[in-house]
Amino acid sequence: MNAAPILPNTVLPSYVQGAWWTPATDSASVSAPAAAAPVDVRDASTGELVTRVSTAGLDLGAALEYARTVGQASLGELTFHQRAMLLKQMALLLTERKPELYELSSRTGATKIDSMVDIDGGIGVLFTYSSKGRRDLPNAHVYVDGPVEPLSKDGSFLARHIYTRLPGVAVQINAFNFPVWGALEKFAPAFLAGVPTLVKPATPSGYVTEAFVRILVDSGLLPAGSLQLVSGSVPTLFDEVRLGDLVAFTGSASTAEKLRANDSVQTGGVRFTGETDSINASVLGPDAVAGTPEFDAFVKQVVTEMTVKAGQKCTAIRRVIVPAATVDDVIAAVRARIEARTVLGDPRAPGVTMGPLASIDQRDEVLRQVGLLVEAGGELVIGTTDAPLVTHANGAIAPAPHGAFVAPLLLRFADAQAAAVHEVEAFGPVSSVLGYETVAEAIDLVRRGGGSLVTSIATHDPQIAVELMTGISAFNGRVLVLDRDDARTSTGHGSPVPQLVHGGPGRAGGGEELGGIRAVLHHMQRTAIQGSPEMLTAITGIWHQGAARHTGARHPFRKSLAELKIGDQIVSDARTVSLDDIEHFAEFTGDTFYAHMNEEAAAANPFFPGRVAHGYLLVSWAAGLFVDPAPGPVLANYGLENLRFVTPVSPGDSIRVALTAKQITPRETDEYGEVRWDAVLTNQKEELVASYDVLTLVAKH
Amino acid sequence: MNAAPILPNTVLPSYVQGAWWTPATDSASVSAPAAAAPVDVRDASTGELVTRVSTAGLDLGAALEYARTVGQASLGELTFHQRAMLLKQMALLLTERKPELYELSSRTGATKIDSMVDIDGGIGVLFTYSSKGRRDLPNAHVYVDGPVEPLSKDGSFLARHIYTRLPGVAVQINAFNFPVWGALEKFAPAFLAGVPTLVKPATPSGYVTEAFVRILVDSGLLPAGSLQLVSGSVPTLFDEVRLGDLVAFTGSASTAEKLRANDSVQTGGVRFTGETDSINASVLGPDAVAGTPEFDAFVKQVVTEMTVKAGQKCTAIRRVIVPAATVDDVIAAVRARIEARTVLGDPRAPGVTMGPLASIDQRDEVLRQVGLLVEAGGELVIGTTDAPLVTHANGAIAPAPHGAFVAPLLLRFADAQAAAVHEVEAFGPVSSVLGYETVAEAIDLVRRGGGSLVTSIATHDPQIAVELMTGISAFNGRVLVLDRDDARTSTGHGSPVPQLVHGGPGRAGGGEELGGIRAVLHHMQRTAIQGSPEMLTAITGIWHQGAARHTGARHPFRKSLAELKIGDQIVSDARTVSLDDIEHFAEFTGDTFYAHMNEEAAAANPFFPGRVAHGYLLVSWAAGLFVDPAPGPVLANYGLENLRFVTPVSPGDSIRVALTAKQITPRETDEYGEVRWDAVLTNQKEELVASYDVLTLVAKH
Repeated sequence: MNAAPILPNTVLPSYVQGAWWTPATDSASVSAPAAAAPVDVRDASTGELVTRVSTAGLDLGAALEYARTVGQASLGELTFHQRAMLLKQMALLLTERKPELYELSSRTGATKIDSMVDIDGGIGVLFTYSSKGRRDLPNAHVYVDGPVEPLSKDGSFLARHIYTRLPGVAVQINAFNFPVWGALEKFAPAFLAGVPTLVKPATPSGYVTEAFVRILVDSGLLPAGSLQLVSGSVPTLFDEVRLGDLVAFTGSASTAEKLRANDSVQTGGVRFTGETDSINASVLGPDAVAGTPEFDAFVKQVVTEMTVKAGQKCTAIRRVIVPAATVDDVIAAVRARIEARTVLGDPRAPGVTMGPLASIDQRDEVLRQVGLLVEAGGELVIGTTDAPLVTHANGAIAPAPHGAFVAPLLLRFADAQAAAVHEVEAFGPVSSVLGYETVAEAIDLVRRGGGSLVTSIATHDPQIAVELMTGISAFNGRVLVLDRDDARTSTGHGSPVPQLVHGGPGRAGGGEELGGIRAVLHHMQRTAIQGSPEMLTAITGIWHQGAARHTGARHPFRKSLAELKIGDQIVSDARTVSLDDIEHFAEFTGDTFYAHMNEEAAAANPFFPGRVAHGYLLVSWAAGLFVDPAPGPVLANYGLENLRFVTPVSPGDSIRVALTAKQITPRETDEYGEVRWDAVLTNQKEELVASYDVLTLVAKH
Repeated sequence: MNAAPILPNTVLPSYVQGAWWTPATDSASVSAPAAAAPVDVRDASTGELVTRVSTAGLDLGAALEYARTVGQASLGELTFHQRAMLLKQMALLLTERKPELYELSSRTGATKIDSMVDIDGGIGVLFTYSSKGRRDLPNAHVYVDGPVEPLSKDGSFLARHIYTRLPGVAVQINAFNFPVWGALEKFAPAFLAGVPTLVKPATPSGYVTEAFVRILVDSGLLPAGSLQLVSGSVPTLFDEVRLGDLVAFTGSASTAEKLRANDSVQTGGVRFTGETDSINASVLGPDAVAGTPEFDAFVKQVVTEMTVKAGQKCTAIRRVIVPAATVDDVIAAVRARIEARTVLGDPRAPGVTMGPLASIDQRDEVLRQVGLLVEAGGELVIGTTDAPLVTHANGAIAPAPHGAFVAPLLLRFADAQAAAVHEVEAFGPVSSVLGYETVAEAIDLVRRGGGSLVTSIATHDPQIAVELMTGISAFNGRVLVLDRDDARTSTGHGSPVPQLVHGGPGRAGGGEELGGIRAVLHHMQRTAIQGSPEMLTAITGIWHQGAARHTGARHPFRKSLAELKIGDQIVSDARTVSLDDIEHFAEFTGDTFYAHMNEEAAAANPFFPGRVAHGYLLVSWAAGLFVDPAPGPVLANYGLENLRFVTPVSPGDSIRVALTAKQITPRETDEYGEVRWDAVLTNQKEELVASYDVLTLVAKH
């Protein structure tokens, strides 16, 4: 089944309360107030009507409450891993259905490469969150943050930090430039956290979002209430949200400012995350003169950032900061590359490498901002603001009066301190070149942006990288260091990747998205939990030292995941270490470190009373003491964590190990899961010799 | 030397730009506008004038700029560990000087126990941050967050998240109730992060803050510009702060609202943290009926929270939520305990257990709020709002017309849903009792508070604890589970501890303080860094796989900390594993797990091709391969981290280990430091067999 065809003159549906919704014809066209009248959405290249958008009569409050009740309940039944598996299935499904999305995407002005960034990029976020979710989160509902904090000497009162999901709804307001990626990069972490989403795409490209939401809805993969779509404006949103909800916004700084000012955010406890376009910089290091690989990589990156998505990226390079002596070289190289490679036109025409902006309104706005930059002293050194000749879908090269085309524009500011170049954003294929004399001045120029999503620096000199970084990192959410070693493999200045945080301070909105499970945690509340070991064990699902242990007749290694319980324990017999053992081990392993072999030298060491047993001997023996050798549910010991040697073991001492099932993580897709065991070695005086976690794979049945 | 005596009719000094400052007499008393006229500060018990407070003429902008320049520079010269050491020295000094602080503190109405909470509590924060700083932070300037994120298949492009300090000043606005703890719990993490502080204590108790700041200033321990004090109001603050600064506020929700609304916070990128008093709850579980240890612990805790600091704690219990059938029992038990133990009076009088509120204004405000609670249906069941008889310093029991005394007051709400009890805060010795029928109803009542700093629950039933926690944790910054196992050792409902986050969502301000290094990171910016291994190594100070390695003639174990460099490496010879070796190791260790001993059973295991070497054998041999046995700078291997076994090793395979110095952490107070080594085991096909970090102690010289 294909996505339903979008028809001009019909209103783009919303998906709320488990059903598709469009305004009643009357209310939409006749009795609705002017503000709620349907808005026309047009093809960015041709100006043809694509669809219309309206929310007149939509009960937003009911949709939010549906998320808080039905959505919270259905997601709450799933563990982190189960949600992660659903994300993967969604990703696979959308991968199959990409052609439909690409076709729609081209109407927004996106070339194939632009669509790939948006559509494949969005699907990639789902894949990454699916795998990060299963690797970095437990197969449970509570996430534990940081180590145990002992609060009493006798171990009866402990604390731990946990994260639990917010009890409300994640309202996600997206920008027009990435109708798929923008929606999925917010949806994936919310979904994984267990928080239902209500997504509100931007009007000019909302029909692409509608298409992928429809694919997901039709698939039946979405738990009830976990994803709702509002195609159109949400003017009453901030009257309807409350503590436990969150609003994640991507768009202009001025809109973010208005939204953030609402009472529900200011005093109501609604979390607000802003990710706003910022005046990002790219700095060419003083070492990276023309002819170096860094210079070439820098120029290539500048052109990419100017032309991909026609420069409509919140991460695009707006300020090209280069050594004053290199300004001319940079401009010449950028011009040559643009002339050689950039073909402006309808993305459906063969050979076109850069499409129009998203709408005529956007074009007019960008040209207005370019006017401000010119007024402030910017000299247009590449391109003009005249209506360009473009390649049409039929191959003709001609003006396009109904298309939102702007040619790539590069400005040069003789005065790098001009305020406008650090403040005015032309959200299109527009950048400005600034010269600097010293690295300190380059740092100052970057900081003048008032906080950015990303800055890149091109240098092959680690000292310059460190100096720049020290000066600018607190003003950036991300910094990319470009040099000959990574130029070929770099993911690029303008590309947020799901593993890394996306967002920046100040002008960039002050929010954080992505960054692996960091974004999942932004949908959860961190709470310090204090209590007895028994209570902390019950609440976290992780066994805590001091909680009940079960030492039955059956060795815990003989229990399958289905039978094993947190707290199941084996306490081994004691085994005495002799000097012969130590020497034997030294000989066998080759580890003849003097602390094991030379009484006098060992005694002179500040940490040893004399010759002591190897730490590796102790953990090897411990395995021998706790292991149950016959085939059974324990399949493998795949690792060890947090091993610390505390009390040295001398010849004549004996050791004993207590091994306790600490955390059980069944896998969703395998017939086994992980069991983490708490291992404690003690000597004959009950002193702690060593502690660590043993990581094993255990069969489910 | 003692703190300078505070004299009535003189103005309490501020400490700005490296010098003590008081208003010029003229400007303070004559020409200043009314708002800037000196404010009288009076003894809470007697009404005697203690001091006066004014900032008329103070150049706040210059003080902030002094912090951003001089303070940033002096703190920037120190590593995390060096700052941590200074915190410890400050703690030791203030410990010596406690008597002076206790004496001043009693004038604020604090009993000895109250002063201990404030003064010893504040010093305790310094000690904790000193030790956490050295344990959880590197001895460097950059903090690395999370693992390496590989971004290219060939390893040439990686990423990492780092934290660097904010480039501005931490302005700390504190509440009147904890003049020492309140200031130190904000100062310690800012200082450790390397961000200079400007502290503005509350007027009624600012003279206690002034006293400890004076002790620190006189000691010479403070790096220039790292701590400034403004004794008095800062009306122009928000015109003066900017991106890179942060404002941490503790006080009323309404003041927080006003401060947060400033442009510099809303759009200027100034970080704002609010910690506001909230309508905290304590829930008695349905199992904890009269006669149980939980019931007794619960009642004791309620009385403590009502009377310590005369209930002037943002964490105090305002809502006592108990099973409806237990309401009478709880009230009777609370009454009995208050009557038996609470002696209201001047804290300087022997036997007094509860002092006055901080000021007459506060007393009037508390009584006004109690009036609102009574109006809303609250029935006063313990205490009255009449002026109480109190114990005077001379032992007389009499009214105290100039003292800010309020008796402990308990209200009972027949209607637990009454809005006022969930919204109105009487910031004194005042609590209200509410009955509930079901655990779900108890959860709903807790949530009605709109977000709290802390909720405690008294139950011995883990299932009830889990049910309550699931319902309330997202509404709380901290939850304490009280039962018979921890009642004796519990640090108490009302006591933030430096290891745990302090702050809560919604009504509680939405901020987070403390929580060990979490609060340090709140003073830093998280930035994703992308680049080549070489660049990531340079920026983080941690060797990354793929960066340059140095394999000189000298074994790296022969190098002292002074000589060792990141990237120093030894690649061992290969050693072949035979079946005899495996059997020998099995016999010696007792680890006869079938995967090592039984070909058929091992081959049936999904992870092994047949019999394989023990993981412990491999790491033991690796140590033998990389160790340099003679006495030298490497003193001990104290642990191992992140060990993962990747490719099994069969008889006939050979292994080799590469050991590379990854991170070097000299200790400030010892003649050695930690070196973390990257260990990689590979087989004869260059496949990864195992990887882990080896932790060693290495001498400095």
